[in-house]
Amino acid sequence: MSEAPAGSAAAGPGRTRRAGAREAVLDAIRTAEPLSRVELAAITGLTEASVSTTVRRLLNEGLVVETGRTPTGGKPRTLLRLDPGARIAVGVHIDEAVTTYVLTGQTGGVVSRMTRPAPVRAGGDAVMRRLVADIEALVDGAGVNRARCLGIGLVWPGPRDAPLPPGLDDGLVRGLSEATGLPVLIENDATAAAVGEFWVARAETARTFAALYMGSGIGGGILLDGVALRGGRAIAGEFGHVCLQVDGPPCRCGSRGCLEALAGPQSVIEAALASSAATAEAGLSAETARQSTVAAFAAIARAARAGSAACRALLDDSARYVAAAAESVVNLLDVDLIVLTGPGFAAASFIYGPAISARLAAADARTWHRSVSVTVSPAAATASATGAAALVIQSSLRG
Amino acid sequence: MSEAPAGSAAAGPGRTRRAGAREAVLDAIRTAEPLSRVELAAITGLTEASVSTTVRRLLNEGLVVETGRTPTGGKPRTLLRLDPGARIAVGVHIDEAVTTYVLTGQTGGVVSRMTRPAPVRAGGDAVMRRLVADIEALVDGAGVNRARCLGIGLVWPGPRDAPLPPGLDDGLVRGLSEATGLPVLIENDATAAAVGEFWVARAETARTFAALYMGSGIGGGILLDGVALRGGRAIAGEFGHVCLQVDGPPCRCGSRGCLEALAGPQSVIEAALASSAATAEAGLSAETARQSTVAAFAAIARAARAGSAACRALLDDSARYVAAAAESVVNLLDVDLIVLTGPGFAAASFIYGPAISARLAAADARTWHRSVSVTVSPAAATASATGAAALVIQSSLRG
Repeated sequence: MSEAPAGSAAAGPGRTRRAGAREAVLDAIRTAEPLSRVELAAITGLTEASVSTTVRRLLNEGLVVETGRTPTGGKPRTLLRLDPGARIAVGVHIDEAVTTYVLTGQTGGVVSRMTRPAPVRAGGDAVMRRLVADIEALVDGAGVNRARCLGIGLVWPGPRDAPLPPGLDDGLVRGLSEATGLPVLIENDATAAAVGEFWVARAETARTFAALYMGSGIGGGILLDGVALRGGRAIAGEFGHVCLQVDGPPCRCGSRGCLEALAGPQSVIEAALASSAATAEAGLSAETARQSTVAAFAAIARAARAGSAACRALLDDSARYVAAAAESVVNLLDVDLIVLTGPGFAAASFIYGPAISARLAAADARTWHRSVSVTVSPAAATASATGAAALVIQSSLRG
Repeated sequence: MSEAPAGSAAAGPGRTRRAGAREAVLDAIRTAEPLSRVELAAITGLTEASVSTTVRRLLNEGLVVETGRTPTGGKPRTLLRLDPGARIAVGVHIDEAVTTYVLTGQTGGVVSRMTRPAPVRAGGDAVMRRLVADIEALVDGAGVNRARCLGIGLVWPGPRDAPLPPGLDDGLVRGLSEATGLPVLIENDATAAAVGEFWVARAETARTFAALYMGSGIGGGILLDGVALRGGRAIAGEFGHVCLQVDGPPCRCGSRGCLEALAGPQSVIEAALASSAATAEAGLSAETARQSTVAAFAAIARAARAGSAACRALLDDSARYVAAAAESVVNLLDVDLIVLTGPGFAAASFIYGPAISARLAAADARTWHRSVSVTVSPAAATASATGAAALVIQSSLRG
């Protein structure tokens, strides 16, 4: 259900069908393992013959293993599960102040994780040496077979939301691939976070939802039946640039009245710096704010939780706008679930969660007549890195 | 690519795959007929064996006919096209003041059309008798075999946007089906218009776009690879209820600052009625406005085109908001095409088209770096009825 580029009918159903059986079987096992072949046929809608052929191939490749038999009466059936370590991938999330690394297996579990101060002010070569050394330490430290590593997913804020750290460009991606011998896939961190939410939650979450992401800016991703909507320019899900005030304040994207300009973490921080009470209560300075938007925003959230009325008011105001944008998203996409993720929502979910829930509940009662859930990710701070690794595994399964 | 209900994996790939070959072949022929079997395999990605089996079945059913041979050198190949009259469907769009009927063949062409004053103030039975008589007149008048009629698509503004005409409820749908002996499919008129745009334009349009619809309100639909995104409650594409001003004027949906409240046809008409210049120049009265939003809005657009500065200013103001909403839609969905449809945009496209184009072009130049097209539908006034019929044909092809 990914969006096909216009006119791509030739890429169409044939390839999709062949890859479809493989993806459907792996997806079903990942979601509800262990499963028998008969259960797989029922869940995927494939014929039993097609399930058998696909499973035989997956067993030969070592992706799937047999794991005992059904305990219930009748003919005993062999159960299948994924071999978690058969395929692993590295996810790297480069944010302003912190680089987050995760190693995930094909079952979606995080095998290992690591955070490091971002080498933002170092030169391009130093950035790359650091990334290569960190990735090697991560993989070797986890004791996994490097030959099983499918590749590296590298995500960062952008393309619209922040200047790239020095050296983070096509040259870096090529160099990283050459130095590690692994393919490198790149993506926007907010879109990756949406995929990470789907991947980590497995059967517990809906397959269709909008993930709102707050990090150094506001972004997000739209999952339709488990696949991220990417769009023509791969920038779908730019929730931060939804217009909420036609003649509003200028946004760094060049437009006016965008959600991010009215209510994003940087606008909250600017308002806090303009308030002596908020500045004092959050222990904020222009210098700390400049170093990391994420850290400064988290300080404001901590102060609000500790009782700062000034900080609380700033976040309440931001949350009103985010809630209005969430209602617009539901009106456009008619999703049943909004997931809040990223370090910003992780820090301030006690304000944003209830504000968005209340606004959507009012709309439900008034016009939708069916409730939309709002959940705060339990792994909001690492969702982007996890999603980066998940994208690598997803893309290999399709191959 | 329609959105699967959450947890519907069991409905999945098997059925989709079987129906997929049939849909893919019919879709390819409809888009680019005449085609040979070899061309069909190349376009759909299906194997030649699978194409042959599918085509044989379609020939037996009479949906597809052979139509000569390839003129080029090499082995001559039989060309295939759809039999336009093999399957027909009726589309009915009930709007405030007018009911529009179309009869389309399976190639998407409109065989026959008819408009009638809406029987809004008649009782339920009278509404149904009128519909039945009109549909019979349409089908019989076109000289088509009634046995080939697949069903009736019935669309109207709503569920959120207008009170239903008296009698237009489940009882009417059941009664209409019993009286005609045909299945009746219902849909929101704005979503149907989006499908109608895709259906009528065939190969000339993208398969992925957002259609903004202006009739008695503002709505629309989102087409992803040729299929309408319906959403969990089948109300995706509610562009009219995108928030553009958090503390804005109350909307009839109960929220505040919705696009429709700020810039919809009813708000334009109210503003015109409050201006003596606009009222006079558009020949408007409270009574005509009450009778038909669509007609009153069209009168304001005609006056603006004829030089009324007061009417022009009202529409320019509305267009600013619609353009901002269009930019939000592109930021969320990353579509490459916005189609303007429905009688409102048909009447005032000379204002809305350029305003939206200009705003999107500015965003392109600034941040997107890839142009988004804005087109005004050449069949905006009948797109909903055509889409209603198309939905019936699409749904039968999937069966």
